[in-house]
Amino acid sequence: MSEPLVLNEYRYFDSDPSIRKIAYELYGDVKDLPIVSPHGHVDPTLFAHNKPFPDPTELILIPDHYVFRMLYSQGIPMESIGVPVVDGTKVETDHRKIWQIFAENFYLFNGTPSGAWLNHEFSIVFGIKEKLNGQNAQQIYDQIQQQLETPAFRPRALFEKFNIEVLTTTDGTEDSLQHHQTIRGSGWKGRVIPCFRPDAVVNMMHASWNQKVAELGEASGTEIDSFRTYIRALEGRREFFKQMGAVSTDQAALTPYTHELSANEAEEIFQRALKHKASAQDAMLFTAHMFMEMARMSIEDGLVMQIHPGSFRNHNQHVYQKFGADKGCDIPVQTEYTNNLYELLNKYGNDRRLKLIVFTLDETSYARELAPLAGHYPAMKLGPAWWFNDSIEGMMRYRLQVTETAGIYNTVGFNDDTRAFPSIPARHDVSRRIDSNFLAYLVARHVIDLGEARRMSKALAYDLVKDAYNL
Amino acid sequence: MSEPLVLNEYRYFDSDPSIRKIAYELYGDVKDLPIVSPHGHVDPTLFAHNKPFPDPTELILIPDHYVFRMLYSQGIPMESIGVPVVDGTKVETDHRKIWQIFAENFYLFNGTPSGAWLNHEFSIVFGIKEKLNGQNAQQIYDQIQQQLETPAFRPRALFEKFNIEVLTTTDGTEDSLQHHQTIRGSGWKGRVIPCFRPDAVVNMMHASWNQKVAELGEASGTEIDSFRTYIRALEGRREFFKQMGAVSTDQAALTPYTHELSANEAEEIFQRALKHKASAQDAMLFTAHMFMEMARMSIEDGLVMQIHPGSFRNHNQHVYQKFGADKGCDIPVQTEYTNNLYELLNKYGNDRRLKLIVFTLDETSYARELAPLAGHYPAMKLGPAWWFNDSIEGMMRYRLQVTETAGIYNTVGFNDDTRAFPSIPARHDVSRRIDSNFLAYLVARHVIDLGEARRMSKALAYDLVKDAYNL
Amino acid sequence: MSEPLVLNEYRYFDSDPSIRKIAYELYGDVKDLPIVSPHGHVDPTLFAHNKPFPDPTELILIPDHYVFRMLYSQGIPMESIGVPVVDGTKVETDHRKIWQIFAENFYLFNGTPSGAWLNHEFSIVFGIKEKLNGQNAQQIYDQIQQQLETPAFRPRALFEKFNIEVLTTTDGTEDSLQHHQTIRGSGWKGRVIPCFRPDAVVNMMHASWNQKVAELGEASGTEIDSFRTYIRALEGRREFFKQMGAVSTDQAALTPYTHELSANEAEEIFQRALKHKASAQDAMLFTAHMFMEMARMSIEDGLVMQIHPGSFRNHNQHVYQKFGADKGCDIPVQTEYTNNLYELLNKYGNDRRLKLIVFTLDETSYARELAPLAGHYPAMKLGPAWWFNDSIEGMMRYRLQVTETAGIYNTVGFNDDTRAFPSIPARHDVSRRIDSNFLAYLVARHVIDLGEARRMSKALAYDLVKDAYNL
Repeated sequence: MSEPLVLNEYRYFDSDPSIRKIAYELYGDVKDLPIVSPHGHVDPTLFAHNKPFPDPTELILIPDHYVFRMLYSQGIPMESIGVPVVDGTKVETDHRKIWQIFAENFYLFNGTPSGAWLNHEFSIVFGIKEKLNGQNAQQIYDQIQQQLETPAFRPRALFEKFNIEVLTTTDGTEDSLQHHQTIRGSGWKGRVIPCFRPDAVVNMMHASWNQKVAELGEASGTEIDSFRTYIRALEGRREFFKQMGAVSTDQAALTPYTHELSANEAEEIFQRALKHKASAQDAMLFTAHMFMEMARMSIEDGLVMQIHPGSFRNHNQHVYQKFGADKGCDIPVQTEYTNNLYELLNKYGNDRRLKLIVFTLDETSYARELAPLAGHYPAMKLGPAWWFNDSIEGMMRYRLQVTETAGIYNTVGFNDDTRAFPSIPARHDVSRRIDSNFLAYLVARHVIDLGEARRMSKALAYDLVKDAYNL
Repeated sequence: MSEPLVLNEYRYFDSDPSIRKIAYELYGDVKDLPIVSPHGHVDPTLFAHNKPFPDPTELILIPDHYVFRMLYSQGIPMESIGVPVVDGTKVETDHRKIWQIFAENFYLFNGTPSGAWLNHEFSIVFGIKEKLNGQNAQQIYDQIQQQLETPAFRPRALFEKFNIEVLTTTDGTEDSLQHHQTIRGSGWKGRVIPCFRPDAVVNMMHASWNQKVAELGEASGTEIDSFRTYIRALEGRREFFKQMGAVSTDQAALTPYTHELSANEAEEIFQRALKHKASAQDAMLFTAHMFMEMARMSIEDGLVMQIHPGSFRNHNQHVYQKFGADKGCDIPVQTEYTNNLYELLNKYGNDRRLKLIVFTLDETSYARELAPLAGHYPAMKLGPAWWFNDSIEGMMRYRLQVTETAGIYNTVGFNDDTRAFPSIPARHDVSRRIDSNFLAYLVARHVIDLGEARRMSKALAYDLVKDAYNL
Repeated sequence: MSEPLVLNEYRYFDSDPSIRKIAYELYGDVKDLPIVSPHGHVDPTLFAHNKPFPDPTELILIPDHYVFRMLYSQGIPMESIGVPVVDGTKVETDHRKIWQIFAENFYLFNGTPSGAWLNHEFSIVFGIKEKLNGQNAQQIYDQIQQQLETPAFRPRALFEKFNIEVLTTTDGTEDSLQHHQTIRGSGWKGRVIPCFRPDAVVNMMHASWNQKVAELGEASGTEIDSFRTYIRALEGRREFFKQMGAVSTDQAALTPYTHELSANEAEEIFQRALKHKASAQDAMLFTAHMFMEMARMSIEDGLVMQIHPGSFRNHNQHVYQKFGADKGCDIPVQTEYTNNLYELLNKYGNDRRLKLIVFTLDETSYARELAPLAGHYPAMKLGPAWWFNDSIEGMMRYRLQVTETAGIYNTVGFNDDTRAFPSIPARHDVSRRIDSNFLAYLVARHVIDLGEARRMSKALAYDLVKDAYNL
């Protein structure tokens, strides 16, 4: 049973002809604009080494927890699809066998964004003409494999083919950024820049906090024996990241609670943590305080500040202990912003030097809290629909719930936030389609006119992200 | 003023012609599939005795709190519409008079699912040709009454006419299931099966807990004087329910908090409860522990486990004390799943022998918590839109918010959850229409193609429910 | 660059032709019905003095925090657009210069309800033919200014032109209502009535509570030295408001928590507050108790009771201290109703003499809590989409989430809730368009028929509000 894989040119647009026609026209204006990817998790080694991708399974399935979590949810063991085990126990290594399982279960992705992205990738990046299924699995594996061996499918060539203007990675504070150095020194013109992510040295509850703080000290040439030296080390590393091209920082936490500690309080908590004696309460307060510190530093050094709260990381301890982090078991929790951001916004939210971009996994906060906050405070902007909400319906809900209160000019364009490099064009394409569709919906209802929609469309696809991230 | 009652064949489908056409086609494939009703509250006595339904008011209005709560909200006293009073005080007994009140206020149901179901019932089950109103009330009463007196309108005949493949009732742990026995012994082929519902012996805050535990002991032939004997009694009754055809259990609680107590803790709480000394905290912990115990038992005996949390029961104490439970004043509360289900999912969620079906009255949890959980844990599936959300818009919101993250294959088809037997075909018909419309919407936007939609449509209407409930 | 300002006659209706046609027809029935505005913040002085509005900036921009908060969010200082500073420091006084800034940034309102209202006001009230922008700013200023100087644009003339049947203001308990007296004594027939708002004498945490209580005492001719005299003073003032035409009260609070204190508890808290010693806990309990007292009084005197909870007032302390209250930095918080309204509804919710209209800024409560409560308790009705949700999408979401459970007859029509007098026709027009569109959507899907829609349309635009507010 073979079914053609055809990407309809009107896909994801409203089926109402008047909306569809306008959406298609608006999309036509922006579809070929360069891709600006200001937040993501692609490994910079790809572009430093520029080695061929090994095979389809290694490229598409094994690193992408969006994909293998769905297989796991249907009872397929992760070992059987090659997800590596922390203790090094052998898992399935026959990548053709894994691909077969993936293909036989590919119908599970019907109606999901992963399905949309994968089909885009298959069709547009690899020129596959049939829908993946159990019958054609090996043949499609071959087709992809052959292309991966050609120069045109090496990372840098794809980067250029994808028309990426800038790609931001995510990097720990202690990172030497050697791969970024290699890229910059290579003569290749692709712009790949780091983002400063201090989570590992902020979250005291993490088992490796002390080690990470030691690594931060080493990287910054400072002995970190006090909160003051710790802050100085962070400031130094931010400066280094800036020199390496960084324009932003990013922080994740269970909640976006912000609170300023006194110098003494911060120091006492920090000393307890150095002695492995920090409590959960200490850790929570320290995280809250570090949001304040990072905002202060951003005002001083001009790095854009991002906050990604609301994920209960590694909810499935069995999976976490066996397979490690980022294995599809980070689950959102309800997230409160109005009270939690109060201190930060009251201290820094009126300061136009700060750019604070706030994300959420809790859609209930869009219209109720985030749009009113972003629609008032000069420093605050709203990040795009994130993670589970980075989807056709999720992005439409985002625009419908945010725009009326915050307008589009307090939002910041699209983030793909992906570690799946070859899915980047697909993700930006979906985003541009949905934003075009949203604007077309407004035009067709005579909320805005076509001229306004054209200017807004360009802003959503390109201008806002460049402006928000100082790119 | 008489208005024709005509059910448009395209009802509830999107008015956009391209969606409507596809929806109608998909619906055509599934509309005549047998009805599988795996969760509900129809009284098994109906099929054991197979007596005629007494009259329209007794059939349609008095037992259905979905209906009389709306009349009550507009100031119509419950006594005046025949809702029985606990202490036996006389209420209105003139069923024609009650029917007249109902008819005069029937416009209140415009735009509600009760309105849609009732009109389906009137038109398709009873062949009524006019919309019910004050003028034609008595005439329509007569029309229904005459039919109820014929053999074709007896419960078993309707069961067959409705094309019900299996109907699940809800039964207390102490229930002798004698009506189920009668049905099985009668030679009638209709499949009516029980569901094991232990709420009355779990919730220690309920006034009749001790009595219900005693009844459980009696039913199981065990003297329950310890947590251990209590558990053994439950295990025995589950076994008996299984022998009587049960495939599932069900538990309701204010929150889905799960927590395992030590054997000692459980025993101490149980002993306090036996002495009428359990605190609210005890009751909460006991409920949390019993979710863990029930999951363990399900792994052992294979019964599917259902959880229905988030209803503040009997919110209106005046109504509860006067009229009893299930009188339209159970009100949803916000419900948290990510933290509450943590212990249960961590202990049993990776075990493929468990099937845990989780419901919600809090739509905000669909995209944020439930779809990510069901889209990861092999044991967990998501129940359909429940109660107030079992409606045209509610079901559409469910699919739009769940599918992108969980797909359709981590959901379990439709539950009618009704005590209104003659409304069952109407409820399944609305569900099949909305699912068809949802899939047509995806096809019209080129998210899936028509072949995929056909397979998914069949799954949503029939395959998933049979598989999820082992039917 | 000049673009025509044309309000399409089908604006805000669904673009699907079948819905649009029905919506237009339904809207045609109700568009010219008189405006009933039962809740708002227009200054009664306007109608007492009937002076010309000074200029466009003073009329449209400076008093409207919906408008200037958006400019502020984009980094435009409030001083530069003439928002007065509390301490009297000079702010920008050149109203043409302010208007220029407003015009240059008018694109920020694309896709927002403020944009829709302003364009309606420009086009229909002032006959402006071009979209406001930097180029035509001064010319449009002139056009508006010239009209404001004519008799036809004085407040009373506009009130009549707008076809306002009744306009409710919001007034403190101590208010002499002298402007209302002046209006009533003037011979002018416009019906402008007060609403009794006790917030300033309820919220003990407010710095001016003691002063406001003293003013209440003075206004009522009572020395308030006890909770009992305080209550008596309130009762007296309610009676005075009633004599002055009031039909309703209104209370705001962070949460809708209701709780009855014993007479002693209430007295003790009140005495502490008189001595400036009330704690935050005292204030919270007092507010909860005052909801109970106000409900009791409403049953006695027949005033409709309104509750507006869930706004974190003056979230931006910098703005609050510099510019005062109502400056666009009141931010919604999540709001719980099922538990919080429990005591009030249990004591008074079954009493048909009470009309309790509940509002929310938290849309998640519509389907989950408010519609089930309003769909059961005879005393409770649901207020319309409020504030940030009083928008095209917000109103549509409201109807879609509320109607299936509460029907339309447990809702109360539209509130404009505005202090921007000339925007009143625009706001009611948007509301009538969206309600028409919602009903047309139901008709086009064959959920209701056109005859039902016509009756419901009239109810939503006119009948329900008159009935709910006893007008």
